[in-house]
Amino acid sequence: MKMVKNAVGRMVPTEINGEKVIPYKGIGKHRPEGRKYAPKIVTAADYPPDGDKRVPSLKEALVKAGLKDGMVISTHHHLRDGDLVANQIFDIAAELGVKDLVWFPSASFPCHKEVIKHLESGVVHHIEGSMNGPLGRFTSEGKMKGTAVLRSHGGRYQAVQDGEVKIDIAVLAAPTADAFGNGHGLEGPSACGGLGYALADYQFAEKVIVVTDNLVPFPAIPMQIIGNYVDYVVEMDKIGIPELIVSGTTQITKSPDRLLIAELTARFCDAAGLVKDGFSFQMGAGGTSLSIGLFFHEMLKARGIRARFAVGGSTQYSTKMLEDGCLDYMLDAQTFDLEAVRSMRENRTKHPDISIFHCYDYHAKGNFTTMMDVMILGGTEVDVNYNGNVVTHSDGYLLHGIGGWQNCLFAKCTILPVPLFRNRIPIIVDEVTTLVGPGELIDVIVTERGIAINPRRQDLIDKVKNAGLPLKTIQELKEEAERICGKPQKPELGDKIVAAIKWVDGTVLDVVRQVKT
Amino acid sequence: MKMVKNAVGRMVPTEINGEKVIPYKGIGKHRPEGRKYAPKIVTAADYPPDGDKRVPSLKEALVKAGLKDGMVISTHHHLRDGDLVANQIFDIAAELGVKDLVWFPSASFPCHKEVIKHLESGVVHHIEGSMNGPLGRFTSEGKMKGTAVLRSHGGRYQAVQDGEVKIDIAVLAAPTADAFGNGHGLEGPSACGGLGYALADYQFAEKVIVVTDNLVPFPAIPMQIIGNYVDYVVEMDKIGIPELIVSGTTQITKSPDRLLIAELTARFCDAAGLVKDGFSFQMGAGGTSLSIGLFFHEMLKARGIRARFAVGGSTQYSTKMLEDGCLDYMLDAQTFDLEAVRSMRENRTKHPDISIFHCYDYHAKGNFTTMMDVMILGGTEVDVNYNGNVVTHSDGYLLHGIGGWQNCLFAKCTILPVPLFRNRIPIIVDEVTTLVGPGELIDVIVTERGIAINPRRQDLIDKVKNAGLPLKTIQELKEEAERICGKPQKPELGDKIVAAIKWVDGTVLDVVRQVKT
Repeated sequence: MKMVKNAVGRMVPTEINGEKVIPYKGIGKHRPEGRKYAPKIVTAADYPPDGDKRVPSLKEALVKAGLKDGMVISTHHHLRDGDLVANQIFDIAAELGVKDLVWFPSASFPCHKEVIKHLESGVVHHIEGSMNGPLGRFTSEGKMKGTAVLRSHGGRYQAVQDGEVKIDIAVLAAPTADAFGNGHGLEGPSACGGLGYALADYQFAEKVIVVTDNLVPFPAIPMQIIGNYVDYVVEMDKIGIPELIVSGTTQITKSPDRLLIAELTARFCDAAGLVKDGFSFQMGAGGTSLSIGLFFHEMLKARGIRARFAVGGSTQYSTKMLEDGCLDYMLDAQTFDLEAVRSMRENRTKHPDISIFHCYDYHAKGNFTTMMDVMILGGTEVDVNYNGNVVTHSDGYLLHGIGGWQNCLFAKCTILPVPLFRNRIPIIVDEVTTLVGPGELIDVIVTERGIAINPRRQDLIDKVKNAGLPLKTIQELKEEAERICGKPQKPELGDKIVAAIKWVDGTVLDVVRQVKT
Repeated sequence: MKMVKNAVGRMVPTEINGEKVIPYKGIGKHRPEGRKYAPKIVTAADYPPDGDKRVPSLKEALVKAGLKDGMVISTHHHLRDGDLVANQIFDIAAELGVKDLVWFPSASFPCHKEVIKHLESGVVHHIEGSMNGPLGRFTSEGKMKGTAVLRSHGGRYQAVQDGEVKIDIAVLAAPTADAFGNGHGLEGPSACGGLGYALADYQFAEKVIVVTDNLVPFPAIPMQIIGNYVDYVVEMDKIGIPELIVSGTTQITKSPDRLLIAELTARFCDAAGLVKDGFSFQMGAGGTSLSIGLFFHEMLKARGIRARFAVGGSTQYSTKMLEDGCLDYMLDAQTFDLEAVRSMRENRTKHPDISIFHCYDYHAKGNFTTMMDVMILGGTEVDVNYNGNVVTHSDGYLLHGIGGWQNCLFAKCTILPVPLFRNRIPIIVDEVTTLVGPGELIDVIVTERGIAINPRRQDLIDKVKNAGLPLKTIQELKEEAERICGKPQKPELGDKIVAAIKWVDGTVLDVVRQVKT
């Protein structure tokens, strides 16, 4: 395989799974050419006039959709670790003797470990999407036939929109749907809130199957999935396990170290003048992020000011901010707990469902992340050049997806609140195992033992230098971690490329190599 | 010009404005081929990171968008006869010396008569869209340089989606917008409710300009126009004249004849068993339609049953039905009066904005109209074969657009409540001047002097034959009108084709010829 050095000095292939790819050229440097992917023109004359597109089973729907060897099958991840639909697709494919499928999920979860047997038997050739947990371990060990391709959420939309990935059949679970194929996640036993990751799938796939366990008479409103794009509707008893789809409640961290990181992050934002009337922010649903949100909430309340908008995944905490008037709009493509699902159902104006196209697509006429004032993200590793990794651990194992992480880096101030070490493995390293985010986009690292600001952001350094914050260089933080934990050993990696990491514009930023076991 | 006889026996050209066209083949007979139109891939790197796409004037926006000779310029008609934006585009084009533009509005109104001078001077080559009033008269008299093309609302979406019409620049008025280009019609001095006709324009146009007189901080919610598709945002003092955009209140008819037609229509629907729990309907905002709606409302209330959904344009009357629980959902692509605008603002779940794509696009995987139980439509002429005309009068003048009329014909029961004559001109004729809707889709004609049911609908005839309704043949109705008014003279028409009438699948159903003056 021909390898070239890309703009950040990583060796990447010029071809993946038999398709030509473009090496990463630098931020904003790749000029896309050509036109978006254009699905076939269809006619309503081929669809039932009464709007009833139901077929008796997923198997029948897949057969009608023309399931055959080599097809690309897409799913969304809104049912998370409670998803009961995706595994069935590949069980059916195995039963039908279909081979070499590409699974193109918006994310995979531990519950999808059942797909491993189909990867082993050849039913599934490879996965393009995140590899959380067991599938990541399987991939890392070099057992997948093809090469995995990891994209950010926005990059997934971009890849479909631009025709890099042509979806043959999209199978979209919908907690509520009508027989025409309109669907949403606000109600039903498997309610999950928004379905903002499904847009690319139904807009661009050749065939679209909606699967539901809560069929309602037309129209299912809001139309988070638009029935006019849907071919078949399948009813089944249960599409998900509710307690694994959304948490009952998301919880702030109780760890004193994490609480300290959260407090330092909030103090940094305040000192930098970021928490101001009309500001915008985005943060995850992890315990540290939630705590930072609480600090923000308290500041806003105390000062009688409001945040203008936040981008979800939403939680009970952001919902509370919204409902007590400290936040004008929660724009939400996925919903993390039951309170947030309730809020999206009840606050249709203030808490609207948006799609990944809106917030993240880089091949659009702008997107939301560049406008955002404060972006709180995680990371498995950061290096002394502020490059970030979210997919592999320092032992080389690919255990996480990119999520919206790369897309979010474009915010005005991107902050990674991370512990200095996890299980005695330092987070700050000389060079990230896998490069997922270029350092020029990462502004601040907050640890329990100090805050490092990217020297490229002299403006931020100037703003906070007299605020009494424990500012350190990233080199100092790294050395401190190494004093405590020792310098970690480099993982032993083989030559085989098991996964490619795409940038938000579809170019190849880095690769993941096999872990020697 | 080569002419051929199409499937309904009308002579139509094989080429219009230099482009090949397909003659009408019959309902559901045309098999579209190929792929949808694919706009160019763009990159967020070319758009301002702070999301502020404002430019100081419409002129500057048009220049930046690359306005040049021969371009297709689209607008929506949500500001109706109060639109202050569309005329400005062509004034600016004239000032810039640009020629031969194609104006592609979703409808035109009398206020757009200003465009006549640009048609005369060559700034505008021709109009593809409805010709209400003065523009229709101008066109009918053979004065337009090119040939007008009339499409239904759904056909307009289909034409753009399928690449028959390539929009170079869409100029979209938004009663509320943010600097990123998100826009809606629910608020602001020019509030008009939904903006459901703008979807094709912003999805497929090369360049999109949003014009507003009510700029709000990001995000403008709901995103009826999605900013990720927008290039430029222009603020101006006033985009519309409020009292000409929506009525203060829509009013039911006071004419005894029209009231009788409304009552007969309602009685027919009742006798045919159409007004049942969970039924669906659509009707216009004319006085007769509103009265029919009131009759339906009373029946539902009296029987304690509910309609499941209606497709708008909504009015104070349908809003009342919704709000007192007689109607579950009002799906609305345009909004006719202030009460309906308020309802759309307040009832985000029960009164959602939809687009023309949802309800009408024939080249989709189904649409809403085929599912609807009762469809109430108007007409300028109906002939003895139940063929309908909505665009020309019996004097040959093209004075109306098609609207959603052709799309709506696909409903389960399509009823035309029409007066037997207008200004002593019979409505029922031997052969419609212009064929806009094939008779096989028109089920019932209700006049003040009797009801004619299409013999193809024996099922309806059987249901109502003993209901004491004044059933007549269409021939009888025609003769009755002619006894009163005399047989109308055929208009004197020239050879020149001034407009083509497209069917919902993009084929040519008929043409309109010049009126000899």
